[in-house]
Amino acid sequence: MSGERDVVRSTYLIETPHALGRAAEVMAGEQSTGTFVAVPGETDEVKARSAARIVGIEELEPVREPSLPGAKPPKEWDGLYRRGRVTLEFPMHNFGPSIPNLMATVAGNLYELQEFSGLRLLDLELPEAFCRRYRGPKFGVEGTRRLAGVLGRPIIGTIVKPSIGLTVEELRLLVRELADAGLDFIKDDELNASPTFAPIEDKVKAVMEEIERAADRTGKKVMYAFNITGDIDELKRRHDLVCAHGGTCIMVSIQSIGLAGLAHLNGYSELPIHGHRNQWGMMTRSPALGMEFAAYQKLCRLAGADHLHVNALDSKFYESNESVIRSVRALREPFAGGAHACMPVLSSGQSAATAERTYRQLGTYDLMNIAGGGIMAHPDGPAAGVRSMQQAWEAAIAGIPRETYAERHAELRRALETFSRSG
Amino acid sequence: MSGERDVVRSTYLIETPHALGRAAEVMAGEQSTGTFVAVPGETDEVKARSAARIVGIEELEPVREPSLPGAKPPKEWDGLYRRGRVTLEFPMHNFGPSIPNLMATVAGNLYELQEFSGLRLLDLELPEAFCRRYRGPKFGVEGTRRLAGVLGRPIIGTIVKPSIGLTVEELRLLVRELADAGLDFIKDDELNASPTFAPIEDKVKAVMEEIERAADRTGKKVMYAFNITGDIDELKRRHDLVCAHGGTCIMVSIQSIGLAGLAHLNGYSELPIHGHRNQWGMMTRSPALGMEFAAYQKLCRLAGADHLHVNALDSKFYESNESVIRSVRALREPFAGGAHACMPVLSSGQSAATAERTYRQLGTYDLMNIAGGGIMAHPDGPAAGVRSMQQAWEAAIAGIPRETYAERHAELRRALETFSRSG
Repeated sequence: MSGERDVVRSTYLIETPHALGRAAEVMAGEQSTGTFVAVPGETDEVKARSAARIVGIEELEPVREPSLPGAKPPKEWDGLYRRGRVTLEFPMHNFGPSIPNLMATVAGNLYELQEFSGLRLLDLELPEAFCRRYRGPKFGVEGTRRLAGVLGRPIIGTIVKPSIGLTVEELRLLVRELADAGLDFIKDDELNASPTFAPIEDKVKAVMEEIERAADRTGKKVMYAFNITGDIDELKRRHDLVCAHGGTCIMVSIQSIGLAGLAHLNGYSELPIHGHRNQWGMMTRSPALGMEFAAYQKLCRLAGADHLHVNALDSKFYESNESVIRSVRALREPFAGGAHACMPVLSSGQSAATAERTYRQLGTYDLMNIAGGGIMAHPDGPAAGVRSMQQAWEAAIAGIPRETYAERHAELRRALETFSRSG
Repeated sequence: MSGERDVVRSTYLIETPHALGRAAEVMAGEQSTGTFVAVPGETDEVKARSAARIVGIEELEPVREPSLPGAKPPKEWDGLYRRGRVTLEFPMHNFGPSIPNLMATVAGNLYELQEFSGLRLLDLELPEAFCRRYRGPKFGVEGTRRLAGVLGRPIIGTIVKPSIGLTVEELRLLVRELADAGLDFIKDDELNASPTFAPIEDKVKAVMEEIERAADRTGKKVMYAFNITGDIDELKRRHDLVCAHGGTCIMVSIQSIGLAGLAHLNGYSELPIHGHRNQWGMMTRSPALGMEFAAYQKLCRLAGADHLHVNALDSKFYESNESVIRSVRALREPFAGGAHACMPVLSSGQSAATAERTYRQLGTYDLMNIAGGGIMAHPDGPAAGVRSMQQAWEAAIAGIPRETYAERHAELRRALETFSRSG
């Protein structure tokens, strides 16, 4: 239950030339009742009402070189940059259960303070009030499985490639081929929303025609995530367009529309929202700056992401496999008194060669496994690419070594020959 | 004029264990027609239609240590991380004049590629089509001066401090005092939008009552930037609320509402939009990651920021004075065929002691100079704080040394005695 005493806890990794306790005080003061000099209005009453509290400081090994530029050491200084984990507690009534105002508090100006040579938001603990304000994913894992008609294995999908450039007629042929191949899911690339040579109105119409026709032939209606990323009003028009043509999924670049844009979309959306986290790298790749995915994914889930990209094992990205595994696990953890079930999307460098290891490492098949080149560049064509992915997951889930399974499954065999170097 | 051949140019600082030319090809391919393996659809026709072109590579000094983790060197490697400036050119028809889709292209997944140990977006060149799609600031410098009634000097303002915690009745007294002191501008802190103990409905009503009463007494209507940061629908309600009570400015945390949220607000806003860039630090403080303000500010201006925070000289923030000066200059440069006049907001550590140096370094008084503690913590009270700031700018603009001017201006003298250590 919520009340005046609801609190938000935020945990940070900090690096500072100051004593850790002093640095934590600066953070707490700066983000609640303080400024750079004492002001008359900062009374005990104001502090009691609104001051942030330091609830934890854990010291880590100090370093000799600052991770980020611009920190200003104190006059008396031993040359060390101290590192630690600091947890602050904010009275929720300072900002209410509002993601935009939460962010101004738990992130805000902290990253720019010269008391720090590193500052990274590691995690957030949010009260239930956030759950009541933001409804979170309406479909999640179960709803997506129902709409895609896939149980007992991952949802296997592909990205339309080349990322950008196909005309509507070229796309039509590709969708037809992929739908006939028995694929579960197709998505636009994040680069491709509504290019002049393939406006989204024409694209949705053509793609859904092909998907419905294929469904008539095969009994299976492919889920297509149309990239509706755009300005706030465009999101609504494009969502309605996809609904009107019988589409079953929309995709957005979360950083492009903002968490506020995502929450707004989720207010009226009737379809699963496929959340793409491109641009997130700039907020997380420096280990001493920005934010951990543990915190970010909670915000995305509250705001309504039914699916969320997490890269993949052995991908083309810088992220370590350990980090990817942590991300997938994080997406399954309930928080703020709600489940917010969100489906992890493993994408990048995926193929039949990556399924076995992925399943062994993650221990779940409640995920989307998206292969772009891994399906489209199968030596026997995209349909064989799809079958090779299905076969690879069948083997993995059944505990059969992929090489054994490949003996009787030609598409898998050919895929392993082609893609094993990246697997 | 726009057309099918309109292009966007984006310039990056990159750091890579690969040859610079190879790394630039990866960037161009990844963000237009390529993927990690050649796919059948990447025809010459598709490339001609949509491929990004490398239009400039400037080599810089290499380094031996990677700036960011996770880069994967090639097999044959001399141990050096090459650095350079790379300019790419994208056909605009890939994404259209759309800020959200532009960002997925010029930033997108680039930051995560393992070919790079550093990647930073330095600048953007946008075609006029962006100007036609996004109207930019409706008030800018001139409109703000008109509404605030201030000519020939900076707009002098303060931030309500303590940042968070005042009740509406406490705020009422403070606004009365500041308005009577002749202040031009008051703003909410970014931490304070609509706390439970001072909901925005009550706050706007009380503040505007005080401002109107003071205007009746003094003839001057203080501009108050109400922090309306919130979810997309709240922005509209809160904007309308401020308008209904005769307010003359609204403030938003741009990163909290997103550029899409800002552009949406600007679609209906009837007031100058005071753009606060909190959270921006996480996108810019690592020199090898994220974005330069040169690029960011163009997006904020297009989306409608009438005012934009730039820190200040000798502030409490990590940013160098050179960087602040560059930011102020950047805000004055027209781009994409439009002026997008935006007022720089100098805030943090400001007081009467900082005016002279600020004017000397910036060479302009087309700015807002915001002092929180520098006004509120003046030893003779906020009213004296306001007068000290006015006197400091009078002296600076007239070219009179501040100590000379202080001889006959008590408030300035007292301010210099109090704040000169931070000036």
